[in-house]
Amino acid sequence: MKLIIANKNYSTWSLRGWLVLRGFDFDFEEVVLDLFTDAFYTEVGKHPGAGKVPVLVDGDVAVWDSLAICEYVNEQYLNGKGWPEDVARRAKARALSAEMHSGFTALREEMPMNIRGRRNVSASEACLKDIARIDAIWTEQMAQFGDKGGWLFGDFSIADVMYAPVALRFLTYGVSVSAKAQRYMEKVLDDATMNQWIEESKLNTVVVPQGEAGEEITV
Amino acid sequence: MKLIIANKNYSTWSLRGWLVLRGFDFDFEEVVLDLFTDAFYTEVGKHPGAGKVPVLVDGDVAVWDSLAICEYVNEQYLNGKGWPEDVARRAKARALSAEMHSGFTALREEMPMNIRGRRNVSASEACLKDIARIDAIWTEQMAQFGDKGGWLFGDFSIADVMYAPVALRFLTYGVSVSAKAQRYMEKVLDDATMNQWIEESKLNTVVVPQGEAGEEITV
Repeated sequence: MKLIIANKNYSTWSLRGWLVLRGFDFDFEEVVLDLFTDAFYTEVGKHPGAGKVPVLVDGDVAVWDSLAICEYVNEQYLNGKGWPEDVARRAKARALSAEMHSGFTALREEMPMNIRGRRNVSASEACLKDIARIDAIWTEQMAQFGDKGGWLFGDFSIADVMYAPVALRFLTYGVSVSAKAQRYMEKVLDDATMNQWIEESKLNTVVVPQGEAGEEITV
Repeated sequence: MKLIIANKNYSTWSLRGWLVLRGFDFDFEEVVLDLFTDAFYTEVGKHPGAGKVPVLVDGDVAVWDSLAICEYVNEQYLNGKGWPEDVARRAKARALSAEMHSGFTALREEMPMNIRGRRNVSASEACLKDIARIDAIWTEQMAQFGDKGGWLFGDFSIADVMYAPVALRFLTYGVSVSAKAQRYMEKVLDDATMNQWIEESKLNTVVVPQGEAGEEITV
């Protein structure tokens, strides 16, 4: 499999495509392209899709969109183990993942992922509502699974692929969450796979203006 | 199963939840609530989720978000037949569905579904780009499946659940598409299930200001 992604410092959807593969221990070839460059459009344009990353290329099959990549990998290679086994939990994990996939637009716009940055932003009411919803989700899941594996549904699942990247936004913009939700943030930020991505994100120092928001925090 | 939805004239996501059930011939109880009313928030608030419709309640399981409802129904009741059988086609159908699920924000904002309306709007460049992308998708799929069932992947699938509602927007705002894409629009607008929804949408004459856009076309 080959995964086409963009700048690791900025691209949360790239991280999600990467996380479902690396988090479930797949070997794959990685093609990293700088956002908004000719090389990006040329390479991504070679494959069917919406002209965005991530794109997973698996032989004749090209899958664009992170959630579709997750479902593809789950079905083709994980034998369904990408989601919780219990029907009700799986339904909830899918609903939460779909909610992340289509929602949280204020959070995304006002607090773009910028792993190397430490920034102050003045969040809108809509953004604060997004943060409160994520806090509530993490809190509820940790109440149930905090002591049983520590991921949103205990073991690592596609729901974590969708929500773990948010922890990096919260870190950059100094967003604090309630105690149980904080536990999830720590789980994510201590995770070896996540730390591999974080380390690799530092290797590319290109600044993409569209991914820069807020005022630099100077200590 | 019980499906909680909102005004049929306006709510495309409700239509998607309804379409996956009715389109695959399920019996289900329907709860229709007017958007932005106390009754809406009270009823939707009884179930876990993002406080939005549709919500599918199936015994102890509550699934919010249309795409998660589709995957749930596909797995629990359709034995996978909600998606094309061929692996590459299924991957493409999922990618297209995920693309609709998270994207086309300009189209959604500028041309809200308003089945009973016939309106003129002046579309932004972003909206025109959304329309061009849908035109391209429909054209490509009709080139392959126009003579083999006429839905996006031949037989009716979840990809149609995601894209068919767009035909109603195009009708309201007089959006014209290229010949092959027009064929898909006609397939959708002639479909008996879609026409059941359209007829039922006329029974509720409540006007929701947030769903009204553009200038009335007077003939």
